Amino acid sequence: MEVEDRMTKEEILTLLEERKYKELREALTNHMHPIDLAILLEEFDQKHMVIIFRLLPKDDAAETFTNLNSDMREHLINALTDSELEEVMEEMYVDDTVDVLEELPANVVDRLLMATDVEKRAQINQLLQYPEDSAGSIMNIDYIAFRKEMTVSEAILKIRQVGLNRETIYTCYVTEKRELIGTVDLKDLLTSGESRTIEEVMDTNVMYATTTDDKEEVAQTIHKYGMMALPIVDHENRMVGLVTVDDAMQVMEDETTEDISIMAGLSPNEESYFGTSVWQHVKNRLPWLIFLMLSATVTQMIMGHYEMALAVMPQLAGFIPMLMGTGGNCGSQSSTLVIRGLAVGEIKFNDLFRVIFKEIRVALIISGILSVINGLRILLMKQGDPLISLTIGLTMACTIVIAKVVGCSLPLIAKKVGLDPAIMATPLISTLVDISTVTVYFSIVSVVFSL
Amino acid sequence: MEVEDRMTKEEILTLLEERKYKELREALTNHMHPIDLAILLEEFDQKHMVIIFRLLPKDDAAETFTNLNSDMREHLINALTDSELEEVMEEMYVDDTVDVLEELPANVVDRLLMATDVEKRAQINQLLQYPEDSAGSIMNIDYIAFRKEMTVSEAILKIRQVGLNRETIYTCYVTEKRELIGTVDLKDLLTSGESRTIEEVMDTNVMYATTTDDKEEVAQTIHKYGMMALPIVDHENRMVGLVTVDDAMQVMEDETTEDISIMAGLSPNEESYFGTSVWQHVKNRLPWLIFLMLSATVTQMIMGHYEMALAVMPQLAGFIPMLMGTGGNCGSQSSTLVIRGLAVGEIKFNDLFRVIFKEIRVALIISGILSVINGLRILLMKQGDPLISLTIGLTMACTIVIAKVVGCSLPLIAKKVGLDPAIMATPLISTLVDISTVTVYFSIVSVVFSL
Repeated sequence: MEVEDRMTKEEILTLLEERKYKELREALTNHMHPIDLAILLEEFDQKHMVIIFRLLPKDDAAETFTNLNSDMREHLINALTDSELEEVMEEMYVDDTVDVLEELPANVVDRLLMATDVEKRAQINQLLQYPEDSAGSIMNIDYIAFRKEMTVSEAILKIRQVGLNRETIYTCYVTEKRELIGTVDLKDLLTSGESRTIEEVMDTNVMYATTTDDKEEVAQTIHKYGMMALPIVDHENRMVGLVTVDDAMQVMEDETTEDISIMAGLSPNEESYFGTSVWQHVKNRLPWLIFLMLSATVTQMIMGHYEMALAVMPQLAGFIPMLMGTGGNCGSQSSTLVIRGLAVGEIKFNDLFRVIFKEIRVALIISGILSVINGLRILLMKQGDPLISLTIGLTMACTIVIAKVVGCSLPLIAKKVGLDPAIMATPLISTLVDISTVTVYFSIVSVVFSL
Repeated sequence: MEVEDRMTKEEILTLLEERKYKELREALTNHMHPIDLAILLEEFDQKHMVIIFRLLPKDDAAETFTNLNSDMREHLINALTDSELEEVMEEMYVDDTVDVLEELPANVVDRLLMATDVEKRAQINQLLQYPEDSAGSIMNIDYIAFRKEMTVSEAILKIRQVGLNRETIYTCYVTEKRELIGTVDLKDLLTSGESRTIEEVMDTNVMYATTTDDKEEVAQTIHKYGMMALPIVDHENRMVGLVTVDDAMQVMEDETTEDISIMAGLSPNEESYFGTSVWQHVKNRLPWLIFLMLSATVTQMIMGHYEMALAVMPQLAGFIPMLMGTGGNCGSQSSTLVIRGLAVGEIKFNDLFRVIFKEIRVALIISGILSVINGLRILLMKQGDPLISLTIGLTMACTIVIAKVVGCSLPLIAKKVGLDPAIMATPLISTLVDISTVTVYFSIVSVVFSL
């Protein structure tokens, strides 16, 4: 992966300290992508960051600003003059502006909106009203629309005239009274006869989403059909914007990070690992830890009932971590497969019984194999007699079946009742499996050893 | 999310049984996206599938074929005549063909290659030689290249002439003796004066990757810079292909699924949940389960040493699941954050000490809070005296610190030595934490209660 000679922090600092601002400006323009610059700027102190930012050409400044973290943006907004802010805002795309505004405190938002022209401010306010996870909240309102009577050459001319200010021109839309009636790929436009009409070359089998659709579904659709963009319509079927493939990729990455966090018992967090303070890390991790720690006392209470059994046969306690660990791992395998299957749209709630049937068969085979391996191990390592070996084998078989059935069904049920399936991952499943493991274990122990 | 009236299985079956092939062909062309059709075809028996496939227009047939699962593809190849196969192969993009070939058994591959023309066969053989995870293995070899002396209007003319057969035309490349010297966005081409030369409008600050670069890094670069495609060069710097944004999205989704699978102790699997047989599910899950089950015997052996202590104070056993559970959850929170940070390129091995320092601070705060809550709980629920409460608190604090340090450092070390960091997730961390928990617990117990 190579970009020609990206600048290092030291090179920039040297030019800064020697006050070679003109050279620095040129070097930044030619050798730094605004996205890399935004990342590098995190390492500078605030005074230097503001100087560097002021040196950037307008369009680079806007793109760099979009990619800064929220603390740095806030500082920059406080440092810039009103007219400087206006210049940045002018260059920013409306959808990026909305993303930025959503992360800033109210007083800073006001100042930014003041620096925006009236038309754009109205658009921003419109976009800010869409629910956080909706297609409307991430859509771009700049797109190219044709009338169906236009010729291909008129259409190309229109692109040449207005295209410069559109974030994407690769798919164009055909509207009639603002209603979406077709799409034309720029590729098809360029390879069609100039005198043909748009109506002749357009594709009327249009895929689209509405402003209130879930942004994750929109991203999945774009991905599934390999689209450059998906048009977004309002509830009167009027086209109001589009979501582009790069925004879809961002949604997919964010949703995945969120899922993975939740699956590990973490509150999801939009900031980076190092960008999150120690206290914030503690706050993100504590709730589940406390909940799970207190849930684990159920296991303890059950074991409390069998203290006499443990006093007589203390070696029974030694098997508990292995039984719980195996059950927990079996359960999390199943829940992970189902959670991921739901996320990529491969499994639906209606598949519940198909999933359970499959998991039971898998569980029976696995429990057979593991029980035998473990039974032999116990006998070979002389950790117990055949009766103990049998008890552990039976417990393990029951635990694995329970773990797999619970593990695969809870995420589906969560989805059905509108919860995030990801909360039904390892931590919760392990705790539930722990409880069922000790219950099963000591029930079997009581019967086999008449304790 | 809406596509106009997609057909259902029943509608297709009705037309099939009434032998209304002409209507079916029209309906499939107008109301079915080839990708949806490929998914729906999985529900048909093989005889019907072949009939439906034969009805499709050539280009739809090729796209449908690309999206079928490997069993269905194999069946179809066996059912089609040589000339039918040739037609499908002719329409398929070279990179898709390579993906298909990689999943098929050798004898079927031979038959497919026979159905391919000589030039394409040479290209396919070339692509098949790139390592599985490399940029070369996923790249597209069709792209548009300009010479720098061409004018903008000549360049547009070239696109109009050859564009139809290129999977992407939105970014074009400028080469000199096959060496990549610049890129031109189609957008810039359309909005520049017709008589300007390519040299004047091209961007010489080219980002590219080499054929042997990791495909995941390529996907991350495309995502990071919001690119439509990334050009791929060979080791003599000659341009040989490009990776498009839709392929990058697929790589990201596949890598994420793989990571999530490995993190749950599953062997990664390219087939869907239902597309995987029960036996294959067993095979994917068993290795880790056996390994972890046997590892858990270490915990058991340690507990064996303290059987006397357990016989005297059997209530001590009851705290073990809670201590292990809390430790395991703490460890998996840390390992998950680091694994994800590595995957999205936010954390590097060099950050090891920064990460450990942060985790230790987080662990100290969390262990303080959890130990106090749990200590109070023990006293309130009268599960033990202040001495037990203190013992559990101390054990918990040590366990949490160990779990977090182990959890955050193992993925980084795995990355450094060339292993997949994802294997250092919950299952392995829990087992390691279990071992350290019982060791710490009984050491403290021995001292406090002089057992």
